[in-house]
Amino acid sequence: MNHFNANDLGKLEKLYRINLINSCTGYKSANLIATKSSDGIENVAVFSSVVHLGSNPPLLGFVVRPTTVPRNTYDNIKKTGYFTVNHIYEAIIEDAHHTSAKYDGVVSEFSKTNLTSMYKKGFLAPFVEGAPVQIGCAYVSEYFIKENDCLLIVGRIEHLFCKKTVLQDDGFIQLDKSTTVAINGLDGYALPKLLRREAYARPKE
Amino acid sequence: MNHFNANDLGKLEKLYRINLINSCTGYKSANLIATKSSDGIENVAVFSSVVHLGSNPPLLGFVVRPTTVPRNTYDNIKKTGYFTVNHIYEAIIEDAHHTSAKYDGVVSEFSKTNLTSMYKKGFLAPFVEGAPVQIGCAYVSEYFIKENDCLLIVGRIEHLFCKKTVLQDDGFIQLDKSTTVAINGLDGYALPKLLRREAYARPKE
Repeated sequence: MNHFNANDLGKLEKLYRINLINSCTGYKSANLIATKSSDGIENVAVFSSVVHLGSNPPLLGFVVRPTTVPRNTYDNIKKTGYFTVNHIYEAIIEDAHHTSAKYDGVVSEFSKTNLTSMYKKGFLAPFVEGAPVQIGCAYVSEYFIKENDCLLIVGRIEHLFCKKTVLQDDGFIQLDKSTTVAINGLDGYALPKLLRREAYARPKE
Repeated sequence: MNHFNANDLGKLEKLYRINLINSCTGYKSANLIATKSSDGIENVAVFSSVVHLGSNPPLLGFVVRPTTVPRNTYDNIKKTGYFTVNHIYEAIIEDAHHTSAKYDGVVSEFSKTNLTSMYKKGFLAPFVEGAPVQIGCAYVSEYFIKENDCLLIVGRIEHLFCKKTVLQDDGFIQLDKSTTVAINGLDGYALPKLLRREAYARPKE
């Protein structure tokens, strides 16, 4: 096996290190977070850091580095209190990835891609049309990760929409039925296929 | 589409809600976190919440609920300062999932499954033999998520091992070359296939 110790990692060329460390934790969720500014400008950006935090209350989190690209997303959430999380599926990978380009805050990524915004139930933030799972969230709190100046943003799920074809009788959303993708590293998009669901694990004798 | 608002979510039957909310954020990383107690008892447990936090310094995080199953993991990390993160791959799914069974702290999950522990470079915590990516981490800090009493544990990568066949020339670890799996919801295991890597996104005119 290849081995990198802390000293090796510190000396790696920057892009090599980013690729390596971004892919070493395994697959990541692939989502578009959409917001609207207080001036009415829509924003949408790809995030691979959306994580489940808890089911009751239904909470999710994501990590932002306030000093880099997704700053518009963070600013809009702080000012308006709302955002949406929309699954990236196979047909929109290219457009979804393009939202990582550094556009000025007055430019909506919806206007630079074939992604289409839509509104539902009077919710302030736009959803991404066609996404098989769309989640409307309210900002709850944030935690400053002092080790590298990141923020963990915590949102409460206010509205959850999912395609009828993916929702199973026990509440399980079978993600491969709608080609939801996963992210490998910084720029790899992978299409998973469900192998099986495991039974609830009970101790052996 | 199916629609659940906050009120609907609060009224769902518990298992339905857990399935639904655990699968709505998309695919999750599939890892085994291994530790050793100060008494020398090895522990290994499946986690779907390992996330990338930053590349320089190389940091990862994971979420634990101190009052439920993975408490041994948390206790061992707090007492010894070290843990390992090991990718779950197709051949060990059943054993990996079985580590979620509620064993007493004196019972090692390694003794109840075909998973095998191994030690490297004098690192205190055991690695899982055969895992295509194995990461030795030092505990750095924790953040209490007050909204639902969870902890985000932050670890610094001290050692990174990966199979030669998965590491590409630019540092990208191509996860599908070693059948690293992804988790869908609570109990679904999916095998992804890389579709493509996207180019660095630059603004369009």
